[in-house]
Amino acid sequence: MDEKQEKRNLLKEIKTMDKKALGALADELREKIIKAVAKNGGHLASNLGMVEATIALHKVFDSPNDKIIFDVGHQCYAHKLITGREDSFDTLRQSGGISGFTNRKESEHDILNEGHSGTALSGALGIAEANKIKGNNNYTVAVVGDGSLTNGMVYEALNNCAEKKLKLILLINDNEMSISKNVGGLDRYFSKIRVSNKYFRLKRGVDKGLSFIPLIGKLLARGARAIKDFFKRVFVRENFFEDLGLIYIGPVDGNNIEKLSIVLNEAKKRETCTVIHMQTKKGKGYELAEKEPDKYHGVGSFDAERGVESVGGECFSSHMGNTLSKLAEKDDKICAITAAMAQGTGLDIFEGEHPERFFDVGIAEEHAITFASGLSVNGMKSVVALYSTFAQRVYDQLMHDVAIQGLPLTLLLDRCGLVANDGITHQGIFDYPVFTTIPNTKIYAPETYSELDNMLSRSINDTCLSIVRYPRGSEKTYTPHVKMEYNEEKMWYVSDNIDKAQGVIITYGRMGALASDVVEKLKDKNIAIIRLLKIFPIDYSELRALTANAKWIYVLEESFKTGGLGEKLSANLDSTRVRVHAIEDFVEHGSLESIMKACKFTTEDIIEEINKI
Amino acid sequence: MDEKQEKRNLLKEIKTMDKKALGALADELREKIIKAVAKNGGHLASNLGMVEATIALHKVFDSPNDKIIFDVGHQCYAHKLITGREDSFDTLRQSGGISGFTNRKESEHDILNEGHSGTALSGALGIAEANKIKGNNNYTVAVVGDGSLTNGMVYEALNNCAEKKLKLILLINDNEMSISKNVGGLDRYFSKIRVSNKYFRLKRGVDKGLSFIPLIGKLLARGARAIKDFFKRVFVRENFFEDLGLIYIGPVDGNNIEKLSIVLNEAKKRETCTVIHMQTKKGKGYELAEKEPDKYHGVGSFDAERGVESVGGECFSSHMGNTLSKLAEKDDKICAITAAMAQGTGLDIFEGEHPERFFDVGIAEEHAITFASGLSVNGMKSVVALYSTFAQRVYDQLMHDVAIQGLPLTLLLDRCGLVANDGITHQGIFDYPVFTTIPNTKIYAPETYSELDNMLSRSINDTCLSIVRYPRGSEKTYTPHVKMEYNEEKMWYVSDNIDKAQGVIITYGRMGALASDVVEKLKDKNIAIIRLLKIFPIDYSELRALTANAKWIYVLEESFKTGGLGEKLSANLDSTRVRVHAIEDFVEHGSLESIMKACKFTTEDIIEEINKI
Repeated sequence: MDEKQEKRNLLKEIKTMDKKALGALADELREKIIKAVAKNGGHLASNLGMVEATIALHKVFDSPNDKIIFDVGHQCYAHKLITGREDSFDTLRQSGGISGFTNRKESEHDILNEGHSGTALSGALGIAEANKIKGNNNYTVAVVGDGSLTNGMVYEALNNCAEKKLKLILLINDNEMSISKNVGGLDRYFSKIRVSNKYFRLKRGVDKGLSFIPLIGKLLARGARAIKDFFKRVFVRENFFEDLGLIYIGPVDGNNIEKLSIVLNEAKKRETCTVIHMQTKKGKGYELAEKEPDKYHGVGSFDAERGVESVGGECFSSHMGNTLSKLAEKDDKICAITAAMAQGTGLDIFEGEHPERFFDVGIAEEHAITFASGLSVNGMKSVVALYSTFAQRVYDQLMHDVAIQGLPLTLLLDRCGLVANDGITHQGIFDYPVFTTIPNTKIYAPETYSELDNMLSRSINDTCLSIVRYPRGSEKTYTPHVKMEYNEEKMWYVSDNIDKAQGVIITYGRMGALASDVVEKLKDKNIAIIRLLKIFPIDYSELRALTANAKWIYVLEESFKTGGLGEKLSANLDSTRVRVHAIEDFVEHGSLESIMKACKFTTEDIIEEINKI
Repeated sequence: MDEKQEKRNLLKEIKTMDKKALGALADELREKIIKAVAKNGGHLASNLGMVEATIALHKVFDSPNDKIIFDVGHQCYAHKLITGREDSFDTLRQSGGISGFTNRKESEHDILNEGHSGTALSGALGIAEANKIKGNNNYTVAVVGDGSLTNGMVYEALNNCAEKKLKLILLINDNEMSISKNVGGLDRYFSKIRVSNKYFRLKRGVDKGLSFIPLIGKLLARGARAIKDFFKRVFVRENFFEDLGLIYIGPVDGNNIEKLSIVLNEAKKRETCTVIHMQTKKGKGYELAEKEPDKYHGVGSFDAERGVESVGGECFSSHMGNTLSKLAEKDDKICAITAAMAQGTGLDIFEGEHPERFFDVGIAEEHAITFASGLSVNGMKSVVALYSTFAQRVYDQLMHDVAIQGLPLTLLLDRCGLVANDGITHQGIFDYPVFTTIPNTKIYAPETYSELDNMLSRSINDTCLSIVRYPRGSEKTYTPHVKMEYNEEKMWYVSDNIDKAQGVIITYGRMGALASDVVEKLKDKNIAIIRLLKIFPIDYSELRALTANAKWIYVLEESFKTGGLGEKLSANLDSTRVRVHAIEDFVEHGSLESIMKACKFTTEDIIEEINKI
């Protein structure tokens, strides 16, 4: 399977392949996906489930004239392989290689960069409306997982699709889970559809404009019993979507290219927005992933024969989960809230210990915060754990439903700073500039687990919005090259050479080790370090006094520059003495080492900058 | 009606009032509401529609132990009157007076400050879960208008209510409109319920635990024909909410205290989250408002006898609507998008001229942006108009669906800066600090209509996210006291005394007039003015050169201080010379004059500060 492929145009060839060839292609793509993910890590189970469906989509539609949008983008590997990225696919998620998500820079077939949940249908509706204005006949398909259906944006978009005469298809990929198991009413609804016999009846003549009835007749006349049963299951209108004024078709087996192609071709004939409910098997074709789709959702590199081995090592997420769980033993007011990321954030540990005070609200970050504010207003201590990048969704809820109310709430931001491999949509670099604009907010950044523990205890008892931000992965232990003294009140470490230092590096989080290394390498310059644990608000006048004798101040910040700590320190200390090294633009995918390098977070780069001052 | 009331405890008295007394109370509250709104302006039609429902709520529930949350909060006037704010109600929306929205500082009966749409059910669910954890039996009621049901957060919350054993009631106030008419699938769905006979059938025994069947029997036995018909209409389960696992009751006449009270009492017996679909008449009891509920949604002061007279005067909103509409005549790619604010933003003018390129997506700001990005990716020029405060919702969509994609999009921010009367949830003071953290973003701020025109033409042809921010109301015309010269490339005005000035005021937007006045009053100090039209990004090096000779720089900014222009100028010019006058905290309600004064945006305050430098 790893022989070099002849250059081939899969996108074209697919249109004329017969059933057998398509089946072989599915096997081949699946192997390629397993191989690349085993090598570089990535999203496995969701991509394996989507192989046949993607083949069917490209068989029936004419990309990129017809536009296929993949919600979240973590199920687009087969799409990438079919649309000209076979040869480079083994560079998946590597610096300069193929992105793990759809990416406009990579291909004209990647219509939108996707990475956050629930946006695909909104984008697709815009594309379809533009087609209508321009008067062309192209189709738009939004592929949305059932997990994303817990996100309110999908509903806002559905509400706007009602009875619109557009060539727009919502293809729901129902694999009975989002990243882990689904929550809430809609999942219950889908379960009902899956099991209830009443949905397997073919309703007669219910649709005004359904032109496929003659087709069914034709097929039935051929005596194709299997197809008939299939249609019975497929062409049934369903309430939820119908209530919103949409045509509903389903459920259909999304791992069956032939059946799904027939349904897609039928949907093409509709002039009204159409919802196709497709069921796929997450992890399909790789036994280990089929058995444990959760475990194989997103993985690091692994041995394809042996499968993913349990990693086990402690990280900020698991450490947080353990600490919070312990705190909750002694404090029965602590509640923990996640938006479909119990495992990713480490809150699964809390869930195990305190299920009655644990809430997974689905991929619904906005609701998560406002729900938590409701818990707070009724006397609980709410702790919400989100990834930094997804927390970009909750600015208004933090402002309107927490800060304006004067309510306490702890927001734990995981995956802060640079995030390996996932790329531009997943970097956690904007939280600091954004959340510092919310009045009465505190922000903490630990370098070590024990600092995280202290901050957790502290923030849970703060009377305001209190944020703790930490990176993906584990703490970095090192012995500082300068002696650091801790000021408990200010929550900062200051090196003991501060009074006579010619320059001071101010930093926070995991940049501490880098600062220490730079100071060691530039020993003769006598540079001091101030490492902040509380990064907002800052006691500027105290910092001014501390740094009064320094000729220069160098702010080293793993965060976006505009609105960042460096900007604030420049504005509030003496800007003519302050230099800021932070992140100045979006950051694409690559290993942590390579993106750190790209952002010049290396000892050498920093030394060069300092030497220039 | 305007005699001084004896001190009375309405909240207590309501519980024992008979039908006649309750009717009289409704009339009385309605008169008070009309009187206060006629005097001070406010939300009229929505509040008039809710009088009976609010009485019923306080009759059946025990506030504040039972907690009633009003979504958006613009229907809470009767609630305020009943819960101890009768005597001060004529101070409505005035500085230091009664807020036009629910406000926690005002009363223990105002559980949450509400002002943004779609949050009430999320908050209520949190409160109900906390009650369950604490083991008490209190109820939580979320009152949500049908317009808010177009917002995705409500759906996220509904999805989380499914089959929960909580004493939680969602009371939908269906007045067939949000601020203006509703849009989308759900509205279509409600219309169907309203008219279809099939929903008026009483289903028998469908509910596992519905204990009211005996009650119906009892009532029927009394031969109460009207009540029987009523129940037929009321206790019908409905698909949409049932599909999500909720109990549904409705529709019920929300302007009938007795009927609604019966239904509320029934809902109290449920242990599962219950949805009550209530119909009310917007503007009820004030004929003019009943006839034109749109016009009487939010009003300025008026003569109650004659009604609201058409205002007609031009403002930034209407001017924008006209200009954009004219631009779209010559450019068939321009599309305009609003989130239920066609009139408020002036886009109703565009809608009238170019209906095929106008989109009202409902109260769904997030979807509005991503939908617009879909239009953009397919070749259109998307223009989204939002109020600044509501645009806080779309940070992630601007980041993820516009900036990361490298797509052009024009975002028009209305009601920027201080906003009269509406208060803390409606100030437009955070957009600048927040949106400057999005890479590749431009922000413009006009002082005049003609500047707005220029910016519109410019931003529509920008190739990035391009924001134009302007205040509520009309342009302020004045003759600058110093001669100002325009630099087209930099988009700033500089007074001709810049080279020899001892100090420079840098400002933007409608603060220009104030700066000019200060400069005139401090003639002897020889102060220069730089007024920025493009407020981000800034050519700092050019500004440094321009201000090199000045002893001090005073930044005058009608926006939040942290992350604001002042902070950026301090950081990038010489911070030791820069003083910043901006908004440092939340701003409560009051007339524009009084809140300007509270934020020290007066000639006197600024002179005092400058004299201190």
